[in-house]
Amino acid sequence: MDIRPATSEDDDAIWRVLQPVFRAGETYPIPRDIGRAEALAYWHTPGHHVFLVEDMGGVVGTYYLRANQRGGGAHVANCGYIVADEQTHKGVARAMCIHSIEQAKQLSFRAMQFNFVVSTNSRAVKLWQSMGFEIVGKLPHAFHHPTRGHVDAYVMFRTL
Amino acid sequence: MDIRPATSEDDDAIWRVLQPVFRAGETYPIPRDIGRAEALAYWHTPGHHVFLVEDMGGVVGTYYLRANQRGGGAHVANCGYIVADEQTHKGVARAMCIHSIEQAKQLSFRAMQFNFVVSTNSRAVKLWQSMGFEIVGKLPHAFHHPTRGHVDAYVMFRTL
Repeated sequence: MDIRPATSEDDDAIWRVLQPVFRAGETYPIPRDIGRAEALAYWHTPGHHVFLVEDMGGVVGTYYLRANQRGGGAHVANCGYIVADEQTHKGVARAMCIHSIEQAKQLSFRAMQFNFVVSTNSRAVKLWQSMGFEIVGKLPHAFHHPTRGHVDAYVMFRTL
Repeated sequence: MDIRPATSEDDDAIWRVLQPVFRAGETYPIPRDIGRAEALAYWHTPGHHVFLVEDMGGVVGTYYLRANQRGGGAHVANCGYIVADEQTHKGVARAMCIHSIEQAKQLSFRAMQFNFVVSTNSRAVKLWQSMGFEIVGKLPHAFHHPTRGHVDAYVMFRTL
């Protein structure tokens, strides 16, 4: 598994990873009908460092790393990770998180925060906890899940 | 005290309110040296509803109201409020918060979240608590205060 910065030539591969996750609408607070251009613009928002994970079968995941706030809050990083469909349970998310923590340290961030981890995404919650993240906030009924209705979202945080 | 939507003709008045607060750097995670154009672009980010508070002396406060997330998170509102220098302790912040809650209800939001209330801003914390907001998250040392060093920030939330 190789992780490298994304280039504009990777847009098709990134969209193939993002699309099914955004369409499902179960883990990201993004419109389920978002189009390719808008989704890529969101993933590549100015200030985002975007990375790709490749294995022999191609692109299996992507993540972004950014400052979560500016000014007095600019020392806390934020990331979003997405694993390609049918590539789950292979350690891709863990590999991306480990990589992002190293990148964040190199960029002199002192902590990392996830703003909106959907509580029903229990695999992600457990994985982040195993990586040293703690649930520091609970947003009651803040996410409308397509099949489970309104469910909580968590704020997760760890020092670097 | 009158609260009304802002127009582009209000930019000078809004900047006079924002500038000292951003320069002080004690309450908003915004670069202290932010310029007028960038500050106004931030305040008027697409999707923000911007309001002004006026009394006989002119503009005494401004706030924005927006959806805090999109997609499955779009039912939770977010606001930022700023009271003009030398206009504190006059109920301007409370008036803006009451107004914003009414506006949010009219826009069919079901809850309101503040993502980053600096813990040392104890007047604001107490005011929001008195308005029904609860501290649902604590972000450890997430804000670098210009005189107090790294201090916590709170996530605050209330149902509408």
